[in-house]
Amino acid sequence: MLGMKTKKVAIVGASGYSGEVLVQLLLNHPHANLVAVTSRQHAGQTLAQVFPKFASHPKTKTLRFTEPNAEVLAKQADVVFLALPHGVAAEYAVPLLAAGRIVIDLSADFRLKSAAVYKEFYAHDHPAPDLLKKSVYGLPEIYRAQIKKSLLIASPGCYPTSILLPLIPLLKAGLVKPTGIIADSLSGVSGAGRKAEVDYLFCECNESVRPYGVPKHRHLSEIEEQLSLAAKSPVVIQFTPHLIPVNRGILTTLYLEPAEKLTEEKISACYQKFYGDETFVRLLEGKSLPDTKNVQGTNVIEIAWRLDSRTNRLIVMSAEDNLVKGASGQAVQSLNILCGFPETAGLV
Amino acid sequence: MLGMKTKKVAIVGASGYSGEVLVQLLLNHPHANLVAVTSRQHAGQTLAQVFPKFASHPKTKTLRFTEPNAEVLAKQADVVFLALPHGVAAEYAVPLLAAGRIVIDLSADFRLKSAAVYKEFYAHDHPAPDLLKKSVYGLPEIYRAQIKKSLLIASPGCYPTSILLPLIPLLKAGLVKPTGIIADSLSGVSGAGRKAEVDYLFCECNESVRPYGVPKHRHLSEIEEQLSLAAKSPVVIQFTPHLIPVNRGILTTLYLEPAEKLTEEKISACYQKFYGDETFVRLLEGKSLPDTKNVQGTNVIEIAWRLDSRTNRLIVMSAEDNLVKGASGQAVQSLNILCGFPETAGLV
Amino acid sequence: MLGMKTKKVAIVGASGYSGEVLVQLLLNHPHANLVAVTSRQHAGQTLAQVFPKFASHPKTKTLRFTEPNAEVLAKQADVVFLALPHGVAAEYAVPLLAAGRIVIDLSADFRLKSAAVYKEFYAHDHPAPDLLKKSVYGLPEIYRAQIKKSLLIASPGCYPTSILLPLIPLLKAGLVKPTGIIADSLSGVSGAGRKAEVDYLFCECNESVRPYGVPKHRHLSEIEEQLSLAAKSPVVIQFTPHLIPVNRGILTTLYLEPAEKLTEEKISACYQKFYGDETFVRLLEGKSLPDTKNVQGTNVIEIAWRLDSRTNRLIVMSAEDNLVKGASGQAVQSLNILCGFPETAGLV
Amino acid sequence: MLGMKTKKVAIVGASGYSGEVLVQLLLNHPHANLVAVTSRQHAGQTLAQVFPKFASHPKTKTLRFTEPNAEVLAKQADVVFLALPHGVAAEYAVPLLAAGRIVIDLSADFRLKSAAVYKEFYAHDHPAPDLLKKSVYGLPEIYRAQIKKSLLIASPGCYPTSILLPLIPLLKAGLVKPTGIIADSLSGVSGAGRKAEVDYLFCECNESVRPYGVPKHRHLSEIEEQLSLAAKSPVVIQFTPHLIPVNRGILTTLYLEPAEKLTEEKISACYQKFYGDETFVRLLEGKSLPDTKNVQGTNVIEIAWRLDSRTNRLIVMSAEDNLVKGASGQAVQSLNILCGFPETAGLV
Repeated sequence: MLGMKTKKVAIVGASGYSGEVLVQLLLNHPHANLVAVTSRQHAGQTLAQVFPKFASHPKTKTLRFTEPNAEVLAKQADVVFLALPHGVAAEYAVPLLAAGRIVIDLSADFRLKSAAVYKEFYAHDHPAPDLLKKSVYGLPEIYRAQIKKSLLIASPGCYPTSILLPLIPLLKAGLVKPTGIIADSLSGVSGAGRKAEVDYLFCECNESVRPYGVPKHRHLSEIEEQLSLAAKSPVVIQFTPHLIPVNRGILTTLYLEPAEKLTEEKISACYQKFYGDETFVRLLEGKSLPDTKNVQGTNVIEIAWRLDSRTNRLIVMSAEDNLVKGASGQAVQSLNILCGFPETAGLV
Repeated sequence: MLGMKTKKVAIVGASGYSGEVLVQLLLNHPHANLVAVTSRQHAGQTLAQVFPKFASHPKTKTLRFTEPNAEVLAKQADVVFLALPHGVAAEYAVPLLAAGRIVIDLSADFRLKSAAVYKEFYAHDHPAPDLLKKSVYGLPEIYRAQIKKSLLIASPGCYPTSILLPLIPLLKAGLVKPTGIIADSLSGVSGAGRKAEVDYLFCECNESVRPYGVPKHRHLSEIEEQLSLAAKSPVVIQFTPHLIPVNRGILTTLYLEPAEKLTEEKISACYQKFYGDETFVRLLEGKSLPDTKNVQGTNVIEIAWRLDSRTNRLIVMSAEDNLVKGASGQAVQSLNILCGFPETAGLV
Repeated sequence: MLGMKTKKVAIVGASGYSGEVLVQLLLNHPHANLVAVTSRQHAGQTLAQVFPKFASHPKTKTLRFTEPNAEVLAKQADVVFLALPHGVAAEYAVPLLAAGRIVIDLSADFRLKSAAVYKEFYAHDHPAPDLLKKSVYGLPEIYRAQIKKSLLIASPGCYPTSILLPLIPLLKAGLVKPTGIIADSLSGVSGAGRKAEVDYLFCECNESVRPYGVPKHRHLSEIEEQLSLAAKSPVVIQFTPHLIPVNRGILTTLYLEPAEKLTEEKISACYQKFYGDETFVRLLEGKSLPDTKNVQGTNVIEIAWRLDSRTNRLIVMSAEDNLVKGASGQAVQSLNILCGFPETAGLV
Repeated sequence: MLGMKTKKVAIVGASGYSGEVLVQLLLNHPHANLVAVTSRQHAGQTLAQVFPKFASHPKTKTLRFTEPNAEVLAKQADVVFLALPHGVAAEYAVPLLAAGRIVIDLSADFRLKSAAVYKEFYAHDHPAPDLLKKSVYGLPEIYRAQIKKSLLIASPGCYPTSILLPLIPLLKAGLVKPTGIIADSLSGVSGAGRKAEVDYLFCECNESVRPYGVPKHRHLSEIEEQLSLAAKSPVVIQFTPHLIPVNRGILTTLYLEPAEKLTEEKISACYQKFYGDETFVRLLEGKSLPDTKNVQGTNVIEIAWRLDSRTNRLIVMSAEDNLVKGASGQAVQSLNILCGFPETAGLV
């Protein structure tokens, strides 16, 4: 039966940090068979050469990076993950979908419903606007049913995941106002990618804490689109990202205004209803607060909240690994859902 | 002339992180003569033994830690710095003031005007409520005139400094509403003090980012008292501290609501008026945003702001070294003011 | 068949860093059933409460820490792991062995053959000298056959593993002299344990690099005993440990003198013969050198070497995760061997 | 008197990490007047724009980076510091010296006496071999008298300083053999320079420890030349550098063989004789061992040693800030010597 279910999977753009985590997860996935990895830079090298840390897995000795070629990939794989910069992913998604392949895209290319908003935030025309209707936003806890039936998954960004998962239940239940929302986020440096830029050198990040991209970060586009869907009204939020000297992890603090007379019981009940049965959402109780070290390397998002009677605000805090739940782990979770694998297969 | 002005100074509780920075600053101060350092734990040892990093300064070979004794200190020093836990500082301040000494206290004991608020936030009766009227809140850029005439300086906390300096000008000028203020702060681990607790071990802090003390941190008491004075109306704010894996540095992001139709010109003019001539306030211009690495080891606070037309909010960000501008540097700045030294003496 | 083979396992002293990694490995082990965890400090709490990071595993919600009690443990478990300080482990090992249980000890108590050497290095009489004859030094790549038949495994220390695995093949093959050996080692802070001591606070370790325990570290006793066995003559080495600001990882650089006219071919052949088929020993080739980040979280040790024609020395370098290959992973590897599980079960 | 002594100084290549520290030291130097800074990349920008951390110094608002031009520099400055890559520094040194300027070069260009050795280690012909006879190796504690009379200072490399200062006294006194010397060094990442390379990204260095450049690092050439001069016989040493996740700091451990029956008294007397009066050499006594955090930001090198009776070896350990004593601080110390300033001017 295990053999029956196994899917052949490929990764396009496997040499960045998200690609690396995808390689790790798919090499060890019980129902996926990693058949191809592409990288312009590393074409010809084995996985073991590029990622010594995975070299104990036998397949890494033989599987070599190739130049990305959609036609070839369509013949090799059932499912293709795209870990490419935005604007580039669409080039591969179009022919792969045309060839009947499933595409799980980790870029921003298919996350928005509106090509106009895409242009506003990404500063160029959308390369394949027709596909925006077909793609599903790959947030499994929210769109599980749609993911199951989709051929094109737009896996969410790291910041959006850390904001949307704690916020959507509250908005859907009408417990908080859709106005005045503030998301203050702290991200590890891997969020910037494996790019040779002075700003991300060790000595520029260590012993440094700094905001950036204030006030209009690109991720706002998908965050606000998803929040608007949840609230059934247009939502505009304040979002401030900060760079923090850790490799992996996002910590988000949300400042929310109650829509009604809120009680701790109502909030707890709302989260329990939405996430009580979710393996990858950890609702913290008692005095615990989220800590990125408790989710590092896992597909879990931690959520805690405090109702502040002094200010009449609800503070919600989340922690995730930006490369796992915020990127590659969540993408594999979508793979599991749409292929009918156990949702936790290959994930911790 | 240098000899004329020199003051004899002592530090009570010199073995913590703030005490250590005080030692460093006062050893190298052109007009201060460090005559005594106390520490129960290190009594009998020289400064060089306890702080090898300062051992190149000749005085560290001979100056020894003593048991703290107010009577003895009153005879030795003109000015006594107290770097003690709250509740303990008052024990020394009372007799030292009675003996005519100047006291610069780095604890929370004399920062509040109200003994009742002290009790609410610190959970015990104030040990010397009469002195609350006499103390001056040692934020030099705001209370320079009062510091000049005071004998008891209550040097502000690290978080309060990072919040008050950017916020007071805006409130005084009526540019932002005194309601709905949010301060989201990130602090290095030295803020927790040199305490042998598992929570602050290297392995518990490295690769970790976490909020704590949500929603009612003790520093709120002095922050709100000072903001209320600036706004001339009671101010209640939201404050969320986070622990970040750096040794030194606080980064604060403030979310504010304009009180009127705000323009960038008005904000810029307000800050220029308040801080244009201040050596230790760096108003960032252009695209620059605060970065704790640019203030580490200095008495400078960096301030930048962005007006967000999408949300109609003003975002103000500050960066300081929690042990210098947020503690010992600022205390030395007060020393300079009240002794008539150049305000920048011994500080960078 | 999986059910048939499953062993019930317990961990005594499960709240330190090694204990925590043991918990992680055994919770996810396909053939082990973690039935008990003990901790004086946490008795009564669930695993999920003490280790939030493992809380997604269902068993952590119900399995509670208990006070350690050898009699009770003997009834609960087939195999008991001891993650206790040296001198304490023997208290539990004696009754557990008497009751017919298998004991895998991560302390130093049973690593030496000589009670006299134990006393010299650990400064107290050995608590159970009779057991020293029965214990097997749990270095699987060297003592696999003996581990298979033993009831008492003395799992090696972290530094010894990083030194012995690269060195034993060379000594056994007579390629290097048993004299003049130098081991210079760099360890992450988790090697110091989860102890509330000022020396291991974040601010004392971050931006710090320092040697310690020079020149006679306790681990020398087991290192030299094992090297002497390999060389069939008494070996005395120079060993210098350093503390480095990483959570996990040991990097060892060995300075060796060739015993004969050495060639690269001979060294390569020697290592290939010893470790060519070992899953957990990664022999680096070409220009690669060991890097702790490539073994973090894995049971792998990386080994590389360079023959220096200028100095006629052989330089051998190794990297391991001190908590996995250097402690808990290796202990689980021993479990797998002695229980007849696949040696890689539950390990990566 | 202060005005009389002031020298006009310039820095060529002021945008790297060494250049940045030079800027800091010279801006605050009591007898130096920083009149020019050059950088191709930043030409036209002020010091405050490029280095916000120094922006509180008034001069940074007006002093602008220029394109490097030896002719112009010769007119502006009395002393020119070159903080350039090796091979490039000579281009500026030749015309500046010809114009009668003093040159303090932080590159490797003038550190060797032999053009042949330069070619062997740097893989190109020496650009100005005639100057090799005129340059003085700028290790002030060893070559103070020569520095005083020189017009061309070749300031030592960071690793060499950490090895030579502890070793030269022992060799000169004949206390250790000139053979079999091993230097195992650990360096912070700033040693790699402010270069946009993937290897030095935060995520590649954090939680990583690794050797590199084994076994023939370029710095060996100047180390061995200087050691040979001290020993009065050719010295070949083993040198292994490692990269460690700190911004600043080098920790070196030296393994030495006593030349005679060594006693602790002899070693102590030797070091006291050489360095007892040196401000910037801290001889540790008692149980203290070097720690890079105790020298960070200072021009001090810490030295400790242990005589190991088990192995009959002398272990010597040193700690320095690679950018201060290992580069720019030491260069300023040379400036002070050759200009007749107090040797500690502008240094801590």
